[in-house]
Amino acid sequence: MMNVPLRVTAMIEHAEAFFPKKTVVSRTASGIRTFTYREIANRTRRLSSALKKIGVQKGDKVGTLAWNHHRHLEAYFAIPGAEAILHTINIRLSPAHIAYIINHAEDKVLLIDQDILPLIEKLKDEIAGVKAFILMTDEQELPASSLEPLYHYEKLLEEGEPSFTFNPDIDENEPAGMCYTSATTGNPKGVIYTHRGIVLHSMALGLADGGSVSESDICMPVVPMFHVNAWGLPFAAVWFGTTQVLPGPQFTPKLLAQLIEREKVTITAGVPTIWLGLLKELDEGNYDTGSLRSILCGGSAAPKGMIKAFETRHNIPFAHAYGMTETSPLVIFSRIKSYQQDLDYEEKLNIRAKQGYLVPGVEMRVKGASGDVKWDGNEMGELLLRGNWIADEYYGDENRSAFEEGWLHTGDVVTVDEEGTIKIVDRTKDLIKSGGEWISSVDLENALIAHDDIYEAAVVAVPNPQWQERPVACVVLKDKAKGKVTKEDIKEYLQPQFAKWWIPDDVLFMDEIPKTSVGKFLKRALRDQVKDHYAGAQTLEK
Amino acid sequence: MMNVPLRVTAMIEHAEAFFPKKTVVSRTASGIRTFTYREIANRTRRLSSALKKIGVQKGDKVGTLAWNHHRHLEAYFAIPGAEAILHTINIRLSPAHIAYIINHAEDKVLLIDQDILPLIEKLKDEIAGVKAFILMTDEQELPASSLEPLYHYEKLLEEGEPSFTFNPDIDENEPAGMCYTSATTGNPKGVIYTHRGIVLHSMALGLADGGSVSESDICMPVVPMFHVNAWGLPFAAVWFGTTQVLPGPQFTPKLLAQLIEREKVTITAGVPTIWLGLLKELDEGNYDTGSLRSILCGGSAAPKGMIKAFETRHNIPFAHAYGMTETSPLVIFSRIKSYQQDLDYEEKLNIRAKQGYLVPGVEMRVKGASGDVKWDGNEMGELLLRGNWIADEYYGDENRSAFEEGWLHTGDVVTVDEEGTIKIVDRTKDLIKSGGEWISSVDLENALIAHDDIYEAAVVAVPNPQWQERPVACVVLKDKAKGKVTKEDIKEYLQPQFAKWWIPDDVLFMDEIPKTSVGKFLKRALRDQVKDHYAGAQTLEK
Repeated sequence: MMNVPLRVTAMIEHAEAFFPKKTVVSRTASGIRTFTYREIANRTRRLSSALKKIGVQKGDKVGTLAWNHHRHLEAYFAIPGAEAILHTINIRLSPAHIAYIINHAEDKVLLIDQDILPLIEKLKDEIAGVKAFILMTDEQELPASSLEPLYHYEKLLEEGEPSFTFNPDIDENEPAGMCYTSATTGNPKGVIYTHRGIVLHSMALGLADGGSVSESDICMPVVPMFHVNAWGLPFAAVWFGTTQVLPGPQFTPKLLAQLIEREKVTITAGVPTIWLGLLKELDEGNYDTGSLRSILCGGSAAPKGMIKAFETRHNIPFAHAYGMTETSPLVIFSRIKSYQQDLDYEEKLNIRAKQGYLVPGVEMRVKGASGDVKWDGNEMGELLLRGNWIADEYYGDENRSAFEEGWLHTGDVVTVDEEGTIKIVDRTKDLIKSGGEWISSVDLENALIAHDDIYEAAVVAVPNPQWQERPVACVVLKDKAKGKVTKEDIKEYLQPQFAKWWIPDDVLFMDEIPKTSVGKFLKRALRDQVKDHYAGAQTLEK
Repeated sequence: MMNVPLRVTAMIEHAEAFFPKKTVVSRTASGIRTFTYREIANRTRRLSSALKKIGVQKGDKVGTLAWNHHRHLEAYFAIPGAEAILHTINIRLSPAHIAYIINHAEDKVLLIDQDILPLIEKLKDEIAGVKAFILMTDEQELPASSLEPLYHYEKLLEEGEPSFTFNPDIDENEPAGMCYTSATTGNPKGVIYTHRGIVLHSMALGLADGGSVSESDICMPVVPMFHVNAWGLPFAAVWFGTTQVLPGPQFTPKLLAQLIEREKVTITAGVPTIWLGLLKELDEGNYDTGSLRSILCGGSAAPKGMIKAFETRHNIPFAHAYGMTETSPLVIFSRIKSYQQDLDYEEKLNIRAKQGYLVPGVEMRVKGASGDVKWDGNEMGELLLRGNWIADEYYGDENRSAFEEGWLHTGDVVTVDEEGTIKIVDRTKDLIKSGGEWISSVDLENALIAHDDIYEAAVVAVPNPQWQERPVACVVLKDKAKGKVTKEDIKEYLQPQFAKWWIPDDVLFMDEIPKTSVGKFLKRALRDQVKDHYAGAQTLEK
């Protein structure tokens, strides 16, 4: 057999050859326009050529600060097409983190959306390594700017060569892209995506039992193209000749609903927060969403109630997936097996609310307190992954603790049942290790939140001389229950649901749980507060 | 990104982990039995271990002479699992060719079905390089045999280790399988399949727009497992947890129809001859074939009438594909694009009767008389292919004429239209080169055969001093037309359908066209006869 390099550019060549009439519907600052793949491929070749003309060399990083639109899509292929590295930058990070990322990656050129220009102008002096800026604008002329040199994207394209050919003989293990994680602690960490990884991941997205992305689909990635390559969908969609709808900057649930209706979107993808917003819009509005065959949801666990609401109220099938920046991201996909089809809806929902089983092409281990865990749906362990679209390092980072022994240590604690269905029960750092056994803080929290009188709850470990750690529940009561519900009430409520040693030693009633800027529990801060509380340094309870 | 070897054994590990309850329905000499993938994986591990115990070394070829059944499926994974090479041998070849293949490949061990045992016993002295024979039998005891040593497959398995582990760190470019072409001239030529090639080809079979093989499918490969790995379906089906129905030895159209009905087969694959037989059975019998979502047809062009008959009379969707032993085989798949869906049935049928467009992961060129052809549906050229499941040599053969410049030269002459739809118009060796232009013998033959008075027809080139070559039609008239239809009638009939220079210079009326053992026109012999005819050495015409 031949050994032909797997390469990103072969995907756009395929679209150009076999799907020249298929289209990309792109919303930019000035409106919605449609391009054929013939046009997109022509513009991509011009952009590759133009990047080389302005000095981009093999292996250079070219950053993008942009929403989901056709120019960003062209950059997805043109930057690797110039044998450079597509570095998508999360525009939602803090300016300090954005500057850090640009410098850490050593970006040579930045492609910038017009509404992000002011931010980059402010950072100008901190990112002196950047040699050129390209403005992705709909305007005829460049605005006045302190950035220099600043190129006009469309004028660069005019000067680029439409006959530029992509090197067919690259090394498939060369980087094609990179993306930094949005680290909750410390600086963001960079993940490199190789040509090989992107192509194989795209294949997984096209598998009938994976994303099932098809030529007949109309795909709207809502997940940003600056975050894990919009889950790889733009790559896969181009390869398979799928019509794409790119929703552009600053979209609202209303806009998404309108696009779904108007463009007859068949598949869309994003995080639960997006779908909560869309659900409200669909509930209140009057949209025809009959074209939708699948909402792909990942990033964090989809609440069962939301899945059910989409399916029963709007007849929109909902698909649950799991991944992370380090995994390209698709590695686990929730799918009902053929012999489970006869189960009733609630039973199937219980299966589908778990993360699912492994996508072909990825291998896993689940490492518990003492070796690989039993697949009994009960024993907990950290999920370890291995595969061609899994990171093997953080860029420029010597700390290899997340990559020991050739596996990615995800930091997610899971159970696996005899069907191979994976359920995330905690993050390793939030897990409570009591007497050599593991207690899931998430399971306890879910039970607490289901209590009628509880507004929110977090469970954290406190050090314990005998058991190593013991769980303590931090509970915010609803106003009506304040002063009425006791610690003992809460413990009694939990007792029938859990083993005796899972029951928290204490229940602390608080006014609120500390949270991150995106609303996740800040467990590290909470643990410190609880420790201080028991040391007498701080009183948490009202 | 990690670089993890793509390997055949990862596919059965995936089935074992995530689809242990899914099944393989296997028909053998003694009846139909069902095995779970847990059992198949266990038996596969035992077989790998047993092969090593009897002396199979890394890189050894292990031949199989077997029908489609569970033991052959186990060998598909166990032989590469022992880091040896699965060499499937076409049991329909002549004994001389079978002996040649076994010797040319240097097979160390042969796995043999009981009904094929007598053939191998006869060849025993000619294949002295084979060190061991394994009989895949349902019987408790081995029959008396002159082969030595002869092992009992099931007893070997009993001695094998179910805990045998597959090497996770092989080189993905190592051979995993091999198969010889059924050459029409000369000796068969060997094609090597690498782990990488098989895995990537399996992914193509799983793509929504490829074979779309899914866990929810019930797949019955009718194409033999001794021929191009049954088009790779057993590999893909295991990986995706697809239920398999393996129809075993000496099946009939009736048996296939019964299996489709009984096992609720959703997808099946084979050559046109098989489907002509099945069509007759379905027309005459009374079967419920409502489960079938696709008949996959390849090997040679599917007649439009047959496609239509399956779809209109039996409501069974028919899918046309193109490949060859050298291409694993799937490279071209006939698929109606989304914007073609509104065409009427006949127009779509005209598209679908062509070979289709390229599967993602493969690249093509079409090389005409003067460089790459225009994609206008008209200009003809030889189809050249490049990709990870395309052969780059014939095993042990120094002649590299089919692999020049890094492309497989298929020997098939095609046109490509502006949609990228490929239509095979001839074999290069049968093409007529007249005045620097190409004439398709197949197009002329199809037109001739559509004439009411013509029973069969072949068009061949005769040397011409002015034009290099000119076409001559060899025509067998139906009895009723003999002596009535003239050469001029035939030429007049063709004139409105073709350019003037395509019209054959002569029409020779014959009693029959020479054919191969499988009913294909023997054009080489016909060309010689026609040459002799014009030289006065032989009179072809009645």
